[in-house]
Amino acid sequence: MYKLTAFLCCFVSLTVAAQTEADHSHRLGRALKFPDVPGYKVMKCDLHMHSVFSDGAVWPDIRVMEALKDGLDAISLTEHLEYQPHKADIPHPDRNRSYELALKEAKDHNLLIIRGSEITRSMPPGHCNAVFIEDANKMLIKDSVEVFREAKRQKAFTFWNHPFWIAQKPDGMASLTEMHKYLIKEHLLDGIEVANDGNYSDEALQIALDNNLTIMGTSDIHQLIDWTFDVPNGGHRPITLVFAKEGTIDAIHEGLVEHRTVVSYKDLLIGRDEYLVPLIKESVKIVSAKYIEKSTVLEVVFENMTSSEFTLQNKSPYTFHEHWDMITLKPGEKTVVQVKTKEKLSDINLSFEVLNAIHAPKSHPTVGFQAKVQG
Amino acid sequence: MYKLTAFLCCFVSLTVAAQTEADHSHRLGRALKFPDVPGYKVMKCDLHMHSVFSDGAVWPDIRVMEALKDGLDAISLTEHLEYQPHKADIPHPDRNRSYELALKEAKDHNLLIIRGSEITRSMPPGHCNAVFIEDANKMLIKDSVEVFREAKRQKAFTFWNHPFWIAQKPDGMASLTEMHKYLIKEHLLDGIEVANDGNYSDEALQIALDNNLTIMGTSDIHQLIDWTFDVPNGGHRPITLVFAKEGTIDAIHEGLVEHRTVVSYKDLLIGRDEYLVPLIKESVKIVSAKYIEKSTVLEVVFENMTSSEFTLQNKSPYTFHEHWDMITLKPGEKTVVQVKTKEKLSDINLSFEVLNAIHAPKSHPTVGFQAKVQG
Amino acid sequence: MYKLTAFLCCFVSLTVAAQTEADHSHRLGRALKFPDVPGYKVMKCDLHMHSVFSDGAVWPDIRVMEALKDGLDAISLTEHLEYQPHKADIPHPDRNRSYELALKEAKDHNLLIIRGSEITRSMPPGHCNAVFIEDANKMLIKDSVEVFREAKRQKAFTFWNHPFWIAQKPDGMASLTEMHKYLIKEHLLDGIEVANDGNYSDEALQIALDNNLTIMGTSDIHQLIDWTFDVPNGGHRPITLVFAKEGTIDAIHEGLVEHRTVVSYKDLLIGRDEYLVPLIKESVKIVSAKYIEKSTVLEVVFENMTSSEFTLQNKSPYTFHEHWDMITLKPGEKTVVQVKTKEKLSDINLSFEVLNAIHAPKSHPTVGFQAKVQG
Amino acid sequence: MYKLTAFLCCFVSLTVAAQTEADHSHRLGRALKFPDVPGYKVMKCDLHMHSVFSDGAVWPDIRVMEALKDGLDAISLTEHLEYQPHKADIPHPDRNRSYELALKEAKDHNLLIIRGSEITRSMPPGHCNAVFIEDANKMLIKDSVEVFREAKRQKAFTFWNHPFWIAQKPDGMASLTEMHKYLIKEHLLDGIEVANDGNYSDEALQIALDNNLTIMGTSDIHQLIDWTFDVPNGGHRPITLVFAKEGTIDAIHEGLVEHRTVVSYKDLLIGRDEYLVPLIKESVKIVSAKYIEKSTVLEVVFENMTSSEFTLQNKSPYTFHEHWDMITLKPGEKTVVQVKTKEKLSDINLSFEVLNAIHAPKSHPTVGFQAKVQG
Repeated sequence: MYKLTAFLCCFVSLTVAAQTEADHSHRLGRALKFPDVPGYKVMKCDLHMHSVFSDGAVWPDIRVMEALKDGLDAISLTEHLEYQPHKADIPHPDRNRSYELALKEAKDHNLLIIRGSEITRSMPPGHCNAVFIEDANKMLIKDSVEVFREAKRQKAFTFWNHPFWIAQKPDGMASLTEMHKYLIKEHLLDGIEVANDGNYSDEALQIALDNNLTIMGTSDIHQLIDWTFDVPNGGHRPITLVFAKEGTIDAIHEGLVEHRTVVSYKDLLIGRDEYLVPLIKESVKIVSAKYIEKSTVLEVVFENMTSSEFTLQNKSPYTFHEHWDMITLKPGEKTVVQVKTKEKLSDINLSFEVLNAIHAPKSHPTVGFQAKVQG
Repeated sequence: MYKLTAFLCCFVSLTVAAQTEADHSHRLGRALKFPDVPGYKVMKCDLHMHSVFSDGAVWPDIRVMEALKDGLDAISLTEHLEYQPHKADIPHPDRNRSYELALKEAKDHNLLIIRGSEITRSMPPGHCNAVFIEDANKMLIKDSVEVFREAKRQKAFTFWNHPFWIAQKPDGMASLTEMHKYLIKEHLLDGIEVANDGNYSDEALQIALDNNLTIMGTSDIHQLIDWTFDVPNGGHRPITLVFAKEGTIDAIHEGLVEHRTVVSYKDLLIGRDEYLVPLIKESVKIVSAKYIEKSTVLEVVFENMTSSEFTLQNKSPYTFHEHWDMITLKPGEKTVVQVKTKEKLSDINLSFEVLNAIHAPKSHPTVGFQAKVQG
Repeated sequence: MYKLTAFLCCFVSLTVAAQTEADHSHRLGRALKFPDVPGYKVMKCDLHMHSVFSDGAVWPDIRVMEALKDGLDAISLTEHLEYQPHKADIPHPDRNRSYELALKEAKDHNLLIIRGSEITRSMPPGHCNAVFIEDANKMLIKDSVEVFREAKRQKAFTFWNHPFWIAQKPDGMASLTEMHKYLIKEHLLDGIEVANDGNYSDEALQIALDNNLTIMGTSDIHQLIDWTFDVPNGGHRPITLVFAKEGTIDAIHEGLVEHRTVVSYKDLLIGRDEYLVPLIKESVKIVSAKYIEKSTVLEVVFENMTSSEFTLQNKSPYTFHEHWDMITLKPGEKTVVQVKTKEKLSDINLSFEVLNAIHAPKSHPTVGFQAKVQG
Repeated sequence: MYKLTAFLCCFVSLTVAAQTEADHSHRLGRALKFPDVPGYKVMKCDLHMHSVFSDGAVWPDIRVMEALKDGLDAISLTEHLEYQPHKADIPHPDRNRSYELALKEAKDHNLLIIRGSEITRSMPPGHCNAVFIEDANKMLIKDSVEVFREAKRQKAFTFWNHPFWIAQKPDGMASLTEMHKYLIKEHLLDGIEVANDGNYSDEALQIALDNNLTIMGTSDIHQLIDWTFDVPNGGHRPITLVFAKEGTIDAIHEGLVEHRTVVSYKDLLIGRDEYLVPLIKESVKIVSAKYIEKSTVLEVVFENMTSSEFTLQNKSPYTFHEHWDMITLKPGEKTVVQVKTKEKLSDINLSFEVLNAIHAPKSHPTVGFQAKVQG
């Protein structure tokens, strides 16, 4: 059969409609969920991916469908311009083609398509991405610095891909070369991936912090999201949460330039405290606090509003009646913590080290949660 | 990163290796399993699918990977020759290209790639497939009969696709036109799909039986197998089991020409008794039969050797001690049936109507199972 | 700790309260569900069980808790009077004690406790139950007929337990002895178990039909319901659905006397057509029927309102677009069936043999389902 | 039917046999698993439970069956002597009766039954247990100190139950009274529960450490283990792992007296470093360590040999290629950790804070793991 309203007919495929419904019911919860924070919309972005227009295995429409299933707000197809293994079959001279096909597929959905391309080099500087470009064709420049200048002429946001890639860095340790230092100094390189595919790098995070780069996380998907990230068993791709003033491409761009990001990688959140902590405070809430009758044991109910598991370590002066100093809050669930307060309080203040959040290598933010005690 | 040993480096991606392992562990049992029968290898074939080389959404390599995950023995990429919605991007003039790419991807695996193409027409005759062709380019013939003659010159096996497709047949009832009758009479049309994608047709089966056509079942996949057939929840694509004298392309061809097929569609098996019954007898075995002490109640242990569930209705003179007249045998599992034989027997003969098998519309084969009683 | 408000303290155990909540959430759906039918409340009853007061392993309160978890409406603890293996420890002379303890436990819940006792004999007549008795102590009568007369003096309803029990009937084949015939003739025996624990008997059903006995199904639980019936994996105990004029003990009694029962055993429903068919018609409903656009294929949506799976075999003149002649309706779910009607109908009539329902040995009722076609 | 080889017959119930098999298959992994450590057998003990012989809800045989399903090595039924809510029904004067019935049930199994009883008092001293007693009847002594002296005359091991019980301690904070100090000083109180039912107490642990008491964890089960600890969803009862010189009752006694215990409560292990650390080292092993080709990234494979999840925080100088500083090792599974060693090493030394292990309130042991690098 034809995939779409084909040239021989023009009806809506009901089988496909039925199947999509079934799909939704069983994948309930596949969508990634993070709350907005005061002042910002939190936009779920994957700005590094490939289709058949470079070395990916799918037509751009699948990238759009995957993103919709994952509940993303924005994606960018960042094809290699120089590496075109399918060129014999897809000789299309316009390097914006992948973007245009994705844009067409996404047109009736809430998904922003950001024009981008990869800048693919051996080390240094290795692979980089330029997103929010105006014309990918003009990015086909041999000189490794000049191509960044062109990106900047186009007002692109640029970032260093997987600086920990073993193929280019056999020790897996991200580190700046002179060329990277130059690109940063010249404001030609804006961000750095700390998470890519199945990898996370403490060293990349340290580079971001030391050089005031935007912290990025991406899927770098080539094959299928479902296979690579084991979606049926609860896995998901790395994404960058961009704190944007509104839900537009321009606002995402502005947020990235201003370093307002948190990366979601597996159950880990990576970011600067000024974005990471507000996000955690909106992600985990005390929804009630009430004393157990005839006791000074306070039942505090936490709710995890996200699709990510939280692991908290107690840093309060109190001890608990069921938990030791570790508390796990499952995605979307409520968890009761019985707090022994010794005296009856009118307000409860609890603070936890958030072990699934990182603001610097091997360092976790400690976050306070407050609530009024009921009755 | 690059998908394969890319132009900048030449190492085996370890991330991919690790991921594949994880994949295997959680998808244990995704592979379709059917036993061989005396005299034949039972080859699991999907001979109708699309890639980006017509209106599919993936590069041919994904079709190969999906087939390997599903445990298939042979596939054919049957691109539309006339319907080329990606032509602006993939103007490749050689219509064998899709086949060649799949062949390359499959080269280190136990998966046969059969050259094929679709013959895409409005009704009549609607869509057909020609597989085991020699050159897809020569199949680009406008005349709807002449193209079948060319297929036959190439020694192809041909079959009618989804004769129940609502887009071409608004009542969903497969029925022969004069042109189909002509094609059959002229030995230009060899088979007919009774199952395609998410549909099964009693009428198509009747046509196969009345006209001595080969019974076919295919995925007709355009998007992703995992999504379309809900693989994470235990779904699978329709396939054609070909009873081949050996595990080669030629032997599959011969088996198809000789109508030696059974279709596996969901948990249904569809075929002629002479292939269906031996397949059932190899699929379900009595592995032990022993009397419960001090009784004439015989514990008969059945084993289902396949990936398909069996639903049996008792047609024996005996009644059971736990089951009513319906027995379900789960894939890969053993099931104990306690048979009340009144007297102690030395051999047990049980016969069941196999409700998940069809040899004619609304008609199920009745199959006998025998075993020696132990001790 | 103490189980209840103990002698040293008088507070409500909060741990227990919290645990019960968790319990509910994970066992969502453990409760057995069957709809009422026109004119009758359908009461879920288990009228055969044991506690430590005969040879069971639990205090009567656990039987009440199990029944509440299973969503039952009424239970009867039918202790052996003659077989008292715990007598050395529990010499309580009052054989109503078990009933009284259950009654106390159930007092704040919607669960009726029916006074009963077992009449435990070797064959003939084997084991029988008397329920709705007035005083179990008076049932301690040696003579096997006289004890039934006493039961009847107390206005009890009596039934034959597991007439297929291998310990008393090595062929597992229920059959009437002269004594049974006498008891029936004298109106001393009202019902017969066709399902008990993990067994179902065609022969017992035939005896019920031939002798106008009430069809009964019970758990006969001695140990734990969760273990014996594998509740965590979706198993459940056999129960008797009594068609009662209201939700009272008297009304259940009247319903039993009038043979208005259907037994639920695994996914099987066993009963006389006059109760079985109305139950099926309330259990499975067509909730919508609408043509697929530009076609004569009707999408009929079935809903299974029960906790039991339905297996239907198509006996309509129509064929389907996705299903073969077998349809499975999962508990609590909606299922779409695409019916090929050839012409557009204003009403749809479908009839199915219900393979998981039995009104006589190896015989299933055929039930019609009607609906108006929409739009 | 009768539960066992009843007075009317003497055959082995086949239904029960079949059911047990099914039970095993679906509960694969319910059994708690911990390895032995050099010099000691690690005995899984639950030394605090109730049956109908005090205020529990089951006959002692169910306690034995639950323990066998949970893979325990030893249990003690510690009935209240003074609190006998079932006394009207079970007036048995011998307080050893519960023990004897459990012993009989366990006789063909690998489960040790330890004679015990509870010493039930209001505060102080609250509830305590005496296990390894000789005669429970002699424990019926009113004086709260004298009863401990009797326990010691019988060579019992004694411990304080749930010192954090809100009913007796409304702030839930375990704290010693003068009477407890006296009992300890006089060597009349040997241990203290830090985990009981669904509660864990930092304060109780501190008391154990400060006063050289044996660290204990028990179920204190009254109802059903499966319900109270949500076994179908992976929950389990608290147990005490006793490091015994051999697998006997005497050796367990000696181990308890010598404070050689670790408590398993949910996924937490609680104990003194000298037992906790060896247990962790046997529980989690590096099974291979091998460099990824052409890199200095070392693939270290950990295996968790237990039924408990481990949560490790990296305290090594190295960073990882996939994990941040937190690693979760699932029960019974292997986990690959890619360690960036910068240079090729011949031996790898990794150290982790074990967050699911506690040797003092809010304090976790840090444990080193070593292995030779392969190849």
